Amino acid sequence: MTAPTLDVIAIGNAIVDVMAPADEATIERLGLAKGGMTLVDTARAQELYDAMGSAKEISGGSAANTLAGLAALGAKCAFIGQVADDQLGEVFAHDIRAGGIAFETPMRAGDPPTARCLIFVTPDGERTMNTFLGASQFLPPAALDDELIASAAVLYLEGYLWDPEEPRSAMRRAIGVARAAGRKVAFTASESFVIERHGDDFRALIDEGQIDILFVNEHELATLTGMSDFEAGVAAVSAKVPVLVATRSAKGAIAVAHGERAEVAAEPVARVVDTTGAGDLFAAGFLAGHVRGAPLGQCLKLGAICAAEIISHYGARPEADLQKLVAEKLG
Amino acid sequence: MTAPTLDVIAIGNAIVDVMAPADEATIERLGLAKGGMTLVDTARAQELYDAMGSAKEISGGSAANTLAGLAALGAKCAFIGQVADDQLGEVFAHDIRAGGIAFETPMRAGDPPTARCLIFVTPDGERTMNTFLGASQFLPPAALDDELIASAAVLYLEGYLWDPEEPRSAMRRAIGVARAAGRKVAFTASESFVIERHGDDFRALIDEGQIDILFVNEHELATLTGMSDFEAGVAAVSAKVPVLVATRSAKGAIAVAHGERAEVAAEPVARVVDTTGAGDLFAAGFLAGHVRGAPLGQCLKLGAICAAEIISHYGARPEADLQKLVAEKLG
Repeated sequence: MTAPTLDVIAIGNAIVDVMAPADEATIERLGLAKGGMTLVDTARAQELYDAMGSAKEISGGSAANTLAGLAALGAKCAFIGQVADDQLGEVFAHDIRAGGIAFETPMRAGDPPTARCLIFVTPDGERTMNTFLGASQFLPPAALDDELIASAAVLYLEGYLWDPEEPRSAMRRAIGVARAAGRKVAFTASESFVIERHGDDFRALIDEGQIDILFVNEHELATLTGMSDFEAGVAAVSAKVPVLVATRSAKGAIAVAHGERAEVAAEPVARVVDTTGAGDLFAAGFLAGHVRGAPLGQCLKLGAICAAEIISHYGARPEADLQKLVAEKLG
Repeated sequence: MTAPTLDVIAIGNAIVDVMAPADEATIERLGLAKGGMTLVDTARAQELYDAMGSAKEISGGSAANTLAGLAALGAKCAFIGQVADDQLGEVFAHDIRAGGIAFETPMRAGDPPTARCLIFVTPDGERTMNTFLGASQFLPPAALDDELIASAAVLYLEGYLWDPEEPRSAMRRAIGVARAAGRKVAFTASESFVIERHGDDFRALIDEGQIDILFVNEHELATLTGMSDFEAGVAAVSAKVPVLVATRSAKGAIAVAHGERAEVAAEPVARVVDTTGAGDLFAAGFLAGHVRGAPLGQCLKLGAICAAEIISHYGARPEADLQKLVAEKLG
């Protein structure tokens, strides 16, 4: 087993976010699930876009956002995800590469177009996401670069992408490649609905010891374990997963690693502008510490700092100089 | 002559801005004309995009930005401009319509793609623009809706669009339509290079009394008149143009209308984040007052308030509730 040359390789949705402010009445009128992520088809995406105010396009995608944070913190990263051969695909590819992240998955010709997520941001900073998956759901197992996967210390997988069939097969194969190379597999649950639909898969992966690092929020943990008590859920999952990270929004986060437990409070934020990407950037900060062998408490603190940065502005890609920010905050 | 049913109809470039922060060293390394607007071809646009950091896409275009401000202030507006039948064209069309602005120019099939402006924003808030005109320069005279033009109190023309041949013909024809209907013609000089190339055209239009309202900045005024003294330039042009508005960045702006002169200081801004659209939004505020018959000083004040809003954030489309902002500032 050779030493890894990459820190993290991620497989995730390749999405451009289309973001606009919206008032509460609009959320209600359009029948949106406030604060959640809903998959939408072409017709619904068009209907929602027509109803949306003047927007900004900013590259997104959960795992891609995490990599953007990791790369900004100095980690060496690569991304695998499917865009179409269109202008939004070019935008996504440009932005991820501009962050210094290797991205070589070939564009997919023809329909459907590159994925987009229509995000309505209410005055409380909450984001309501409506995702048109487009090309993203057609990531084929053949797009995996086994050598690249084997070269990364951590393979990071996005739960959202477990839903469509082709990428699910691709991720299963990637887990095998990473484990055969002696690498760690990290998984983010992404959203409760994913666990509702594929909980059996995830529980099996956990029981088989395929997941080394698991990111969940409170709600996802409850869905995964069937336990409404947070601590009971933590105990149950941490018995099977070497590193468990559970985020609790404004209540901070906890991690249990090989029996050691640490907690962190949420980092104070002057004004929550847009919560899009909070979980993604928490994972970025945590993993950045983890791959450097930082103490568990410091990994959590890094996560909290990055999450606070992302919710203080529009969009899920970091704007501040994260390395400088972290240096200031950690002292 | 019937009463106008629209306040302002504008003809301008239909552009999506691609914006990213950049340091001074990058501006120098890429050989960019800091603070200016440079036209770029496909190859140079690709080269600059490759060198650019992770970006945001936000609809732009000088006259389109002005209309966005006008519409936000309650004016009834329509836009004429050429996008291609592609994703960025959809973005532009969505955003302008989302502002309540009528936009019916048919998309243009095939190459070139929709115009984009690669904007590097330095830490001092200065924007350096590199425009790939794409489809925008192929606005045909046939795309004009004469009835719509005749229905607007003001026809607003973007100087940038005087450069390519087809839109120049279209604008010449539009001036004829507007004047025949007894409407006013407003013109923004846009940038000194436009006047360097087409100064004879502009001076002829002014001499013939075709321009009712002219927007220039200090530098453009000097280029137009050949006079380095600001006051001498103002005197020369205001003798021929019924309403002259001359902006002077941080020094504020002056207007001379039918012999009456007014001045306004620049509105204070906590932090200049991005100057993109400052002139466009000044014109929006001024025209919003003008079409309602507001006193000259108040028209200038409205311009200053809108310009201050736009430079306090990324992008050239207003984010704050301009009507509320104006109500607060005017007291």
